[in-house]
Amino acid sequence: MRENLVSTPGWHAAWLPDDAFAPLGRRVVAVSAPPDAGPVATTVVAEVRAAVDRFGGRLLTASVGDDAAPALVLALAPDAGLPAEGFAVARTGGTTRVTAADEAGLLYGLFHVVRLGEGAFDDALVPGSHAPAHAVRMLDHWDNVDVHDVMGQVERGYAGGSIFYEDGALCPDLTRVGAYARLLAASGVNRVTVNNVNVHRTEARLLTDRLGDVVRLADQFRPWGIRVHLAVSFGAPLTLGGLGTCDPLEPAVADWWADAAARVYAAIPDFGGFLVKADSEGQPGPFAYGRDHADGANVLARALAPYGGTVHWRAFVYNHHQDWRDRKTDRARAAYDHFTPLDGKFDENVVVQVKFGPLDFQVREPVSPVLTAMPRTRLALELQVTQEYTGQQKHVYYLPEQWSEVLGWEPWADGRTVSDVARDVVAVSNVGDDRFWTGHPLAQANLYGFGRLAWDPTLTPSDLLDEWTRLTFPGADPRVRDVLRDVVLGSRATYEQYTAPLGVCFMVGPGHYGPGVDFYEYSPWGTYHFADRDGIGVDRTVASGTGYAGQYPEPWASTYESPDTCPDELLLFFHHVPYTHVLRSGKTVVQHVYDTHTDGAARTEEMARRWEDLDGLVEPDLFDRVRTLLAEQVRSAGEWRDQVRTYFWRHSGVPDERGGPLY
Amino acid sequence: MRENLVSTPGWHAAWLPDDAFAPLGRRVVAVSAPPDAGPVATTVVAEVRAAVDRFGGRLLTASVGDDAAPALVLALAPDAGLPAEGFAVARTGGTTRVTAADEAGLLYGLFHVVRLGEGAFDDALVPGSHAPAHAVRMLDHWDNVDVHDVMGQVERGYAGGSIFYEDGALCPDLTRVGAYARLLAASGVNRVTVNNVNVHRTEARLLTDRLGDVVRLADQFRPWGIRVHLAVSFGAPLTLGGLGTCDPLEPAVADWWADAAARVYAAIPDFGGFLVKADSEGQPGPFAYGRDHADGANVLARALAPYGGTVHWRAFVYNHHQDWRDRKTDRARAAYDHFTPLDGKFDENVVVQVKFGPLDFQVREPVSPVLTAMPRTRLALELQVTQEYTGQQKHVYYLPEQWSEVLGWEPWADGRTVSDVARDVVAVSNVGDDRFWTGHPLAQANLYGFGRLAWDPTLTPSDLLDEWTRLTFPGADPRVRDVLRDVVLGSRATYEQYTAPLGVCFMVGPGHYGPGVDFYEYSPWGTYHFADRDGIGVDRTVASGTGYAGQYPEPWASTYESPDTCPDELLLFFHHVPYTHVLRSGKTVVQHVYDTHTDGAARTEEMARRWEDLDGLVEPDLFDRVRTLLAEQVRSAGEWRDQVRTYFWRHSGVPDERGGPLY
Repeated sequence: MRENLVSTPGWHAAWLPDDAFAPLGRRVVAVSAPPDAGPVATTVVAEVRAAVDRFGGRLLTASVGDDAAPALVLALAPDAGLPAEGFAVARTGGTTRVTAADEAGLLYGLFHVVRLGEGAFDDALVPGSHAPAHAVRMLDHWDNVDVHDVMGQVERGYAGGSIFYEDGALCPDLTRVGAYARLLAASGVNRVTVNNVNVHRTEARLLTDRLGDVVRLADQFRPWGIRVHLAVSFGAPLTLGGLGTCDPLEPAVADWWADAAARVYAAIPDFGGFLVKADSEGQPGPFAYGRDHADGANVLARALAPYGGTVHWRAFVYNHHQDWRDRKTDRARAAYDHFTPLDGKFDENVVVQVKFGPLDFQVREPVSPVLTAMPRTRLALELQVTQEYTGQQKHVYYLPEQWSEVLGWEPWADGRTVSDVARDVVAVSNVGDDRFWTGHPLAQANLYGFGRLAWDPTLTPSDLLDEWTRLTFPGADPRVRDVLRDVVLGSRATYEQYTAPLGVCFMVGPGHYGPGVDFYEYSPWGTYHFADRDGIGVDRTVASGTGYAGQYPEPWASTYESPDTCPDELLLFFHHVPYTHVLRSGKTVVQHVYDTHTDGAARTEEMARRWEDLDGLVEPDLFDRVRTLLAEQVRSAGEWRDQVRTYFWRHSGVPDERGGPLY
Repeated sequence: MRENLVSTPGWHAAWLPDDAFAPLGRRVVAVSAPPDAGPVATTVVAEVRAAVDRFGGRLLTASVGDDAAPALVLALAPDAGLPAEGFAVARTGGTTRVTAADEAGLLYGLFHVVRLGEGAFDDALVPGSHAPAHAVRMLDHWDNVDVHDVMGQVERGYAGGSIFYEDGALCPDLTRVGAYARLLAASGVNRVTVNNVNVHRTEARLLTDRLGDVVRLADQFRPWGIRVHLAVSFGAPLTLGGLGTCDPLEPAVADWWADAAARVYAAIPDFGGFLVKADSEGQPGPFAYGRDHADGANVLARALAPYGGTVHWRAFVYNHHQDWRDRKTDRARAAYDHFTPLDGKFDENVVVQVKFGPLDFQVREPVSPVLTAMPRTRLALELQVTQEYTGQQKHVYYLPEQWSEVLGWEPWADGRTVSDVARDVVAVSNVGDDRFWTGHPLAQANLYGFGRLAWDPTLTPSDLLDEWTRLTFPGADPRVRDVLRDVVLGSRATYEQYTAPLGVCFMVGPGHYGPGVDFYEYSPWGTYHFADRDGIGVDRTVASGTGYAGQYPEPWASTYESPDTCPDELLLFFHHVPYTHVLRSGKTVVQHVYDTHTDGAARTEEMARRWEDLDGLVEPDLFDRVRTLLAEQVRSAGEWRDQVRTYFWRHSGVPDERGGPLY
């Protein structure tokens, strides 16, 4: 049995194993598109041809007469009034017809059919139109060209090296990048930033004398409808251009950027644009010249505008040399304070890219109020597929459960959601040169889920998981689906249970893995919980705290302001309370901490036991990898449990009602 | 003025500036030694010749007739009954006469004269005999040949790179090693281990195919009476020899070591021996074969015995994968528990090398009880000149103040001291390729002080400092001495005041620099303080704790056992007490913490202010370097003060009687 479950040599097929194409490949398929429709249309033809060649079907193209009635028609119809990248699906007379607005839509339509499997050829197929909710669905790669002393080849990467670069140069063989582009296209991603936002010396030169590397990467992504973006250093005119300044209001600086953009577009006509981390954690920015972030972003935007490019400008600006003694400065306030006064001042092709929460990709943060307060600015929601704070691809943590919550959150409680206000959706990639792409094989579901939710934020995490399972394990025993549901669904809540409680954030150790309850408590990073013998939490109220709660529109400002209405899971984010404070759940804070940590860690043991039921049902190397990682998750969760419980016990002196061990 | 204060280009002259030789160099000096006396005697002649050439005196040698009456005679007198390396000094008829037992004694006698300066030629010179209290006075270099990923070129090195190795190879120019050997000889050191006790792959091969590097180093040290030792891996027969085992009782393993030693001595006839860290922090050792440390050490010792070599075998053996939940296991007990049962089983040329305290070079630990409990074993006391936990050569921390205390401690309160029971004195070097050798210029006084105390443990730290000052700043304004006294003396007490209090140890952050009150509290390293809302400290009593106090002989076992008799400065090392426990000083623990931290940090500000008085009186680059480092010390001490005070405040809830800030 095991012998039949081996996947493609070299790297795992992820959600595009050959068998996922069997229903389509067994049939007669017509692709109707002019021969010069473009590289993506060519990809569609090639995909169908490969599938029918493998599974015994047949490909009809518009230019060749044939007497067989197609079971599937994929047709370009630019005049059908469909939205960009969109497609419509219908079935009549035994033929399923996919009509696409453009060649990208044709490719997405093809993958839609793949996802449906045999269902695509069922007469019960429900007709409908499909188009992405978000025009830009981007993955940011924090890949370095040179191996960084501290951060390595991929900053916050937990899946080996980079698939783009190795030891200071572009990988000579980019075959895997093409395979990656194919996976991304099948999930709905249409943009990729190919280098780290912390732009170091060598990486800065991707914009200039190393531009050829970006050209070669763009060549790999283009056939899959994916445009490449480049993270650039705001200091480039100074460090690369030798101008002596990078003041955005200096005409020579504007000229330098214009020239740089012209050179990029001459080489890559469909180049997407620049991503910038400025005045953030040591990166250069406009503040050095007394300019604001609109000044900074606009000078780059104007360089890109003639070519249709955009600047993604990160709102992750805060004081990372904070004094822990100072309780007035609040890192959570920073992005709002810096950016919302600039609403309306950004050029149209500037996108302000906002992390989903005010801190930094924690398990539980409130949604960033910046997303609610810049109506005249194009916004991107920034997520993190890479599990920096969420278990580093050693722990099962199903991110769509968090992202759905964020995308569906209603800032005004009036039906409008975060998805409605953020035009772009961006995430930091979790991919490396690991055989399984993402280190933990189940973290593939996060990568897949990101693209799918960026396309359609209303998909439920549960349906998404089943969809991923059907594609990844085609024809598998039904128990595979059941086990994956048991192991994956609820994993975000489980992780939250055994780590930092009640929205308190940042109880992590060095490298952001594992418990370090006080590790950041006296640091310059602005991430404190202020625990003492009486209580814990950060007073961010308007009445007595940092005023952060007042950055929200109503009803949230009032809801968060009072501990009586603040949701339990965010209580310690907004309030400093005694350990004996009674939560809305009826439990005290300290007993909640004891219970959730005990229960969360116990749940990881159940997950590990449940996984054993897949022995022999999935390919052995995937099974073994997950088994090994679950053992680490169980160990790590136990460590979190014991350290956090003990910390609360030592501080509060309150015994655990349930009597579990405290040290 | 400043122009006249520049020191030797390349590196600082430390305690051997040319001017230190002026009193001798201005005079007629006779060296009486046969031409074949050896390389060290040759060195003595060369030193005198260089001095008289520079300052206008004259050198007389026994083989040349001369009518001038010498002011100084340095004479070899092997039959005078002087102890090895010893010499006698007397002055009669206007001639100062140094009589030496051997050529090393001649060199030490020469440097004795240099130290005395003009006093050597004063008729009031008190005659006397001098010999080292410790036969072996060794510096261990934790230098790597390859740059280690985490630990760098020099493990726990805070003075730049290695003076021996650079990027995987021996430095091509060893001139500086010769200059270093000269400095060491002038301080009294007679052994150097040339590589890190954590023996990595490349470094292991210094024993075999890289032996040529050791030969070249030995050639630099030999003229200065210094024998080289090599840190070797216990696993060498396995990893280098391909034997498949390193079981010490396996004859093939014994043969391998015998062959290795034979090859070393063929190349370096005066080779000192091996240093071994076995079964410690991941290094291989005899435990893997069910053998004990006597088995392990003896197999190496027997290989070296035919040549007069010794094995220094470190007693630093403990469980570094401890469970913080487990309060029964006590790292402090480990060396005693492992080694004292083996007393009498070690061969005569085995030296068990014992860190001065039971943990790891902390500011305040009790003296290791191992030193009191192995009467039938040759012991070495291991100190650390490199300031791993004591400010990393950014803080002024005058180590002789700590070492004097240790060397003079009386385990049985009967007059016998640690110096009496430890035949060898060893320390980890603080030297790197920094211009000032030791990073912090004032840390030179620690390096100098080590050699001098190993020679004569009764020297007072204050006299030692003055001696170092006279040599290092010859002819300087008397204010230099006064300022140095004010800045340096008491600096150990100051550092203790603002860091971990009352012997509690290990409140350091990553890399062992700066505060991290809880950083090790939940770690596997066995270094805990168990602070909670009520109290802090480690119960190491026999009555209710780990029993560590019982490892001491009387009167210390009883003294440490009771909080009523335990010295205040070690209270938290031996006892877990409430914050409100009243010390023998009359203060509560918590108020003591508040006060000492406030006062200690304030003292660093005084030190920095006092240093300013030297502007223009010492060479400017030395002045500036110390000024910069003092500013860092002030900053760091303030951080220690605020974090430790706040930690105790948050835990205890007790206000500071003196009203200082708490956060």
